[in-house]
Amino acid sequence: MKRVAIVGAGCTKFGERLDAGLSELFTEAYIEALHGVDKGIDPSEIQEAFIGSMGSGGGQIANTAPLMIDYAGIPGIPATKVENACASGGYAIRSAILSILTGQCKVALVGGVEKMRDIPGERGRAWLGVGGDTEWERWHGLTFPAVFALMATRHMHEYGTTREQLAKVAVKNHKNGSKNPKAHFQNEIKLENALKAPMVAYPLSLMDCCPTSDGASAAILCEESLARRYTDTPVYIAGFGAATDRLASFSRESLTKGIATVNASSQAYKMAGIGPDDIDLAEVHDCFTIAEIVHTEDLGFCKKGEGGKFVEEGQTEIAGKVAVNPSGGLKAKGHPIGATGVGQVYEIFKQLRNEADKPSRQVPDAQIGLAHIMGGFIAAGTVHILAR
Amino acid sequence: MKRVAIVGAGCTKFGERLDAGLSELFTEAYIEALHGVDKGIDPSEIQEAFIGSMGSGGGQIANTAPLMIDYAGIPGIPATKVENACASGGYAIRSAILSILTGQCKVALVGGVEKMRDIPGERGRAWLGVGGDTEWERWHGLTFPAVFALMATRHMHEYGTTREQLAKVAVKNHKNGSKNPKAHFQNEIKLENALKAPMVAYPLSLMDCCPTSDGASAAILCEESLARRYTDTPVYIAGFGAATDRLASFSRESLTKGIATVNASSQAYKMAGIGPDDIDLAEVHDCFTIAEIVHTEDLGFCKKGEGGKFVEEGQTEIAGKVAVNPSGGLKAKGHPIGATGVGQVYEIFKQLRNEADKPSRQVPDAQIGLAHIMGGFIAAGTVHILAR
Repeated sequence: MKRVAIVGAGCTKFGERLDAGLSELFTEAYIEALHGVDKGIDPSEIQEAFIGSMGSGGGQIANTAPLMIDYAGIPGIPATKVENACASGGYAIRSAILSILTGQCKVALVGGVEKMRDIPGERGRAWLGVGGDTEWERWHGLTFPAVFALMATRHMHEYGTTREQLAKVAVKNHKNGSKNPKAHFQNEIKLENALKAPMVAYPLSLMDCCPTSDGASAAILCEESLARRYTDTPVYIAGFGAATDRLASFSRESLTKGIATVNASSQAYKMAGIGPDDIDLAEVHDCFTIAEIVHTEDLGFCKKGEGGKFVEEGQTEIAGKVAVNPSGGLKAKGHPIGATGVGQVYEIFKQLRNEADKPSRQVPDAQIGLAHIMGGFIAAGTVHILAR
Repeated sequence: MKRVAIVGAGCTKFGERLDAGLSELFTEAYIEALHGVDKGIDPSEIQEAFIGSMGSGGGQIANTAPLMIDYAGIPGIPATKVENACASGGYAIRSAILSILTGQCKVALVGGVEKMRDIPGERGRAWLGVGGDTEWERWHGLTFPAVFALMATRHMHEYGTTREQLAKVAVKNHKNGSKNPKAHFQNEIKLENALKAPMVAYPLSLMDCCPTSDGASAAILCEESLARRYTDTPVYIAGFGAATDRLASFSRESLTKGIATVNASSQAYKMAGIGPDDIDLAEVHDCFTIAEIVHTEDLGFCKKGEGGKFVEEGQTEIAGKVAVNPSGGLKAKGHPIGATGVGQVYEIFKQLRNEADKPSRQVPDAQIGLAHIMGGFIAAGTVHILAR
């Protein structure tokens, strides 16, 4: 199969961006992606766009895709908004890959964008939860902190995972985020403070939960044959996969295993012809600390049940066996829903080109990176494997 | 290029469906599509799903794609929700085509679904307008009836189009809808009553505006080589196109020409190797009567400015030069946003197989059909050309 290349990427500062609306955020990320194409690219060379977004301004704005490209100055091209809750960006990337592989376009813009910090009224407060099962779970109290708390208590029960191990995910991701000028939180935290933080849903404290953020991200993808017209250091999509799971947690056979992660990553590994041990760094969907632990198991970085020990031993540190969330992850970099997935690809693009910010969160000699994103309670997700 | 085949299609009754929620509606359409596959298909043969939906239950439900396939009994496969306002279904079809053409899947389910009639509170009333430009137009009063009224008055000014010609679109579409058991409105209307109906935004009366409807639609697509495993009478996607335009009406060079329609249909005609004169029937995005008139011009069925005369002469009747909206169109069949685009394909699939309901809205000897859908003020749309 032909490959698809990434030749430019951009990402806004994630966080409370009261200075910018949806269109301004998207354009900021797009401009960075455009100017980041080493040998230059004319906007007219972009033939199609795919935008990941969930709420699009608290549900006040639909038809987001033509709006974003209009504001960015490239109106008229086919543009598709993809919405799979927190995995919207991942599915947008996949959609762009498919379009390029069919020859529908040669160069595509992929972006993600979300406003979460200044949504007025009831929509703002209740907003994120719509990605889970609404009718049978959310409306009855099983919001995301609650359902991931069930995952955590069950993981503790089955495998002896501890609150300290959960907290160490947060400590690591804040440490990485402190070196990332785009991160929502750029402060390190101490283990004891994480453990003393206000309880949200036992055993998840405030420091086990990612924030809600504003932000946008963008990447410019093209067919393999064009890549070196744009840069001498393209990054390639070596493999990709997508899968879903039943939406409601009560429908699952296990609370501690994400079948969608297992299936999507299996597809991606197979396509890339590699295995988990070949991955140098991974951006993983750590909406809650327990999620990162479960995902590292389901992605095959460690055995099922050993995710807690894996982080405790420092194996997911930048200098560890596999650097997990060198960007800071959702926990510290932030989680502007639609922007998160493409933001992961931005981080891996930078890492594989040895361009991560310094003082360094750069993973030494990074050759292969993996982006993993999941929407809802691990109900829809994608995995993309990127290689130099 | 390889072609993609349609081997089954389903559509719920459109209208006020207080009996069914989002999941029930979708499953109803899916079951009809599944059972409509002549030689049978096992649900496990469906490898991927694409769902068009805008609000997904008044914004209370995201992650709609995994929810729909979970409820339908085929969880786990990759599933993508596509949202391009009223064109969501059209872009979902295009996404499925791309996936099949790359070999990512061999058989795909495409669906569309929307609840619009029993959305509570402010979200229900203001809801549809989010597909237009919100920040600079909708919030200041330029809702869809208003902006299409500007299109109508300008078309009257430039080309002498009359209110009677507008009303004749509604009369024709209600006549067709009266023969469609799935239509929201199954009653004929008289020209003089349409002209006397309450004014919504001059010159558009209530009878010039499509309703808001609940509904769902589905189609099963597969790669060409598999088509005859499922049916002896597949319908093929002969050509397709997609385009966008600047979202706000104030950004346009013309209020009476839809560039996105022109561009999307040009792509589709070129791919199919045919022209407008080859089309036997077309499902056209008649959100307002003036929209059908403008679209018949932009699709090339008549010259620019002659759309009013074209309908007046009966050329868009079932027995006319090109049958426009034999289903009743958005005006009479109804407009459940996400479901509308795939519902158009359902109608054309039935027509090309000579299976349209009787007493007949069947277009005699229909060989080639065109589905045209546009989101917002003709801001994002697709055209699909279907052939036996």
